Amino acid sequence: MQEEYPVRNGEARDPAQFVIGVDLGGTNARAALITREGHIARQARRPSLQDQPPDATLGQIVEACREVIAAEGIAAGQVGGVGIGLPGIMDIHTGVCFWSPNFAQWQNVPIGPTVGAGLGIPAFILNDAKCAALGELVYGAGKGVRNMVMITLGTGIGGAFVVDGKLLIGPNGSIGEVGHQTLDPNGPRCGCGNFGCWEAMCARDAIIDLADRKLQAGRPSLLRELAPRGGVTPELVSRAAAENDAVALEVFNEIGFLLGVGVAGLINILNPERFVIGGGISQAGELLFGPIRRTVDRRAVPMQRKTAEIVPALLGDNAGVMGAAALVLDRLDGITSAL
Amino acid sequence: MQEEYPVRNGEARDPAQFVIGVDLGGTNARAALITREGHIARQARRPSLQDQPPDATLGQIVEACREVIAAEGIAAGQVGGVGIGLPGIMDIHTGVCFWSPNFAQWQNVPIGPTVGAGLGIPAFILNDAKCAALGELVYGAGKGVRNMVMITLGTGIGGAFVVDGKLLIGPNGSIGEVGHQTLDPNGPRCGCGNFGCWEAMCARDAIIDLADRKLQAGRPSLLRELAPRGGVTPELVSRAAAENDAVALEVFNEIGFLLGVGVAGLINILNPERFVIGGGISQAGELLFGPIRRTVDRRAVPMQRKTAEIVPALLGDNAGVMGAAALVLDRLDGITSAL
Repeated sequence: MQEEYPVRNGEARDPAQFVIGVDLGGTNARAALITREGHIARQARRPSLQDQPPDATLGQIVEACREVIAAEGIAAGQVGGVGIGLPGIMDIHTGVCFWSPNFAQWQNVPIGPTVGAGLGIPAFILNDAKCAALGELVYGAGKGVRNMVMITLGTGIGGAFVVDGKLLIGPNGSIGEVGHQTLDPNGPRCGCGNFGCWEAMCARDAIIDLADRKLQAGRPSLLRELAPRGGVTPELVSRAAAENDAVALEVFNEIGFLLGVGVAGLINILNPERFVIGGGISQAGELLFGPIRRTVDRRAVPMQRKTAEIVPALLGDNAGVMGAAALVLDRLDGITSAL
Repeated sequence: MQEEYPVRNGEARDPAQFVIGVDLGGTNARAALITREGHIARQARRPSLQDQPPDATLGQIVEACREVIAAEGIAAGQVGGVGIGLPGIMDIHTGVCFWSPNFAQWQNVPIGPTVGAGLGIPAFILNDAKCAALGELVYGAGKGVRNMVMITLGTGIGGAFVVDGKLLIGPNGSIGEVGHQTLDPNGPRCGCGNFGCWEAMCARDAIIDLADRKLQAGRPSLLRELAPRGGVTPELVSRAAAENDAVALEVFNEIGFLLGVGVAGLINILNPERFVIGGGISQAGELLFGPIRRTVDRRAVPMQRKTAEIVPALLGDNAGVMGAAALVLDRLDGITSAL
């Protein structure tokens, strides 16, 4: 097919120079045309039509992909494939999604085959949290290592494990889901029924509860000014902590200690070279990373600690599309195992 | 080489029908000639000459291997390879052992190359705990699954993770070392400096301490008769528990609860189809497995729990040589990934 190389700006282009990453959320499907090197060349968004039948949503994905291909002035054949990240339970081999929280009426939707046929290029799917980890591994905070653990701190707590360049999946697709591992057997009850889970102790609501308890105990705090009618958020705790507010600093120290206990445990048993922490809560930066690192210094086996860097995620909102792009490279070329 | 097939008992034999597994302990090197199907055909033991230079020990391994080959009446070329399991830190790719607790003066000993050259067949090395897990995976309690976690309960607590048919190793060779993961952040101090590690809370000494504390509190117990001058052991606690001794049953319930917390956490994050528990302490059987399973029932995410069987290890003292044999098959044929 060498004769079909598109010529643009006077240059011949390699057919597989681009891949497309799609981040399928409840509101929008975002498609990004991405170079092998991880540069986002073009982007498009379409409403994901959450309440319509699956074919409508898959049609939006195909349209968004066509838009970025057309905008770049290339043929679909010049794109190696499309990767699609979405929350839910799916079979990554067949491309069929069994269930997604964003698309309540979906059952056994053949996303990969349908989008692939629509565009005439290979299409692959992966859970969005794992996609984000793959993005960080190939283009972000995990670049250059073959062994990485990533956790994502937000409303919930997710995670992903990479060993020897391979993202671990598991028969239920749930390897790396640290959110309901016990951090403290005597900790508070979690929504899952267990006690002392990471999610019950360190996610968004736990941070808010901890701050509220300190305020209710009558402690003076800048948080009273920042949220005069209640409604403390992790962002406000961050802002107060940045001003050296004692209550806010305590919240991060206590949450950071618990996270550090969990991070040390994962470093001990998984031997990562890089431990990546992302998600909204991680935006607190050193306020949170400081107590995490100090706890890990005391709690991880020294040899394991020495070889594990604890770093923030780098890709932010782009992790989803970048990871979906990395998924394509992985499926086509085994890029993650070849790192 | 078809013409060189040895003929014995009138039958032609496949050159790679046998492999040798070696379990190198501080006292003995045990070699077993094992069929592909996992039948131990011949065995030999030689003193491991702990205090002599490494070449003496490696010579003993070669001699033990020659002995089992000769006893079976085959040629070395009919053996696919030799696997050697030993405690310590090593590079499994080069076959060099950097450090072993059993051989204090060893430094960078090329076990694989030396034994391989001595016998004229490929030789491979692996940490003994990982060897045992590989043995259980291929020939024992993990047979038929591709995703397995194994923990070994004894003086210390070790472990190994198998994902998608592959034993995970890690850059430091330490993936699966659950002994120093925190089970309870407020638990007792561990020898490693951390607090509330699996080893500090559930290994042999923790069981003994727990029983002693209950006896010192003046509780009546059969253990006072079984160990009239102190010196309670996990074996005695087992024996008393089997007689419905309340103190002994409490010890297993409390240790089983803590183990269950840890097992549930590993099931949540690693999604094993089979969770194998071995080591001396696991000999307590249902006295320990009962409380472990009940705790996991309450604490693991239901989907993960449903797909994970919790079972005792099956190979006992043979796990080492069987695992070393499986290591050879893995290296030669990728058998573990092909399960």
